Amino acid sequence: MRAAWSIVVLAFALVPSMDVGEQPASDVPSFSGKALVLPSHYTAWPVVGASLGMTYSGGPQHGPGSFHRVYMNPTALAQYQRNGSFPEGTTFVLEIREALQRTSILRGGFFEGRRVALEGSVKDRTRYPEGWAYFDFDNGARTTGSMFPDTECHSCHAEHGEKDSVFVQFYPLLRGEKE
Amino acid sequence: MRAAWSIVVLAFALVPSMDVGEQPASDVPSFSGKALVLPSHYTAWPVVGASLGMTYSGGPQHGPGSFHRVYMNPTALAQYQRNGSFPEGTTFVLEIREALQRTSILRGGFFEGRRVALEGSVKDRTRYPEGWAYFDFDNGARTTGSMFPDTECHSCHAEHGEKDSVFVQFYPLLRGEKE
Repeated sequence: MRAAWSIVVLAFALVPSMDVGEQPASDVPSFSGKALVLPSHYTAWPVVGASLGMTYSGGPQHGPGSFHRVYMNPTALAQYQRNGSFPEGTTFVLEIREALQRTSILRGGFFEGRRVALEGSVKDRTRYPEGWAYFDFDNGARTTGSMFPDTECHSCHAEHGEKDSVFVQFYPLLRGEKE
Repeated sequence: MRAAWSIVVLAFALVPSMDVGEQPASDVPSFSGKALVLPSHYTAWPVVGASLGMTYSGGPQHGPGSFHRVYMNPTALAQYQRNGSFPEGTTFVLEIREALQRTSILRGGFFEGRRVALEGSVKDRTRYPEGWAYFDFDNGARTTGSMFPDTECHSCHAEHGEKDSVFVQFYPLLRGEKE
């Protein structure tokens, strides 16, 4: 019995300290056929970058535009931070939120209001010929993503994303700069 | 032996699936005397809100201002999401980042550039008479925080923060809205 109990103690000693509710779910992507399923706990994931009003066309812009916040699954982020490449299963979730102002004591500037769109992307070379695919979750109304056509997202990502079709140039947690 | 092995199996079954490198450190705050120590893995924490150029005075503003991103320790966030109150040990880290524009293919809008300030706050009623204290990490040059005077932060937080001296009104992950 003594040996068996040693194994029990060892098993607990190997468990990272963690409270209930903290990162409870696996962050490995799950699929329904070729469609990405919305990760249920993505708001607990790291936000690799936030932006306001980003546009890629030179037309006139009215108002501040919208906030983007981009979440990344923590297991893939940890691997990226170790070796600088995106592993299979890398998953991003993009929330688009309205920009609010002049609320409470605020006299200038903008903060994140209600979510108006919810999208995702995933790297899986066995499922997608381009390596990456992009999905619309209809602002949360659908938990199984509707795939965007390749031409709508991937061609621009592949051409302008600085690393492996990802716009790392816009994301402070992925640029890897010394601070 | 059979009973003992059942306990071993149970021990492993209770362990959440987790890869090495994912949330490796405890998120319980640590202190040096009365000073908060910068949490070493705070960038893996959830970002409860992001904003651009927020000011509380009505003076003229030149340029977009700076991005704020506010991280919260995940154990405290999980408890807050369950019962709506901030437990002892709640820790926030504030990064202030310059706003960049017209980089790469960007024609409008702003994204987060280099970090220019790093601050933190913590709830601990045994250490601080106001319940909360606020610290400056000198943009990462110091890992033991320099405490801001009560009048500089807390009086405004206590008066205008919508819940327990926290500006939950600006943070989408803390407002608890249905989306």
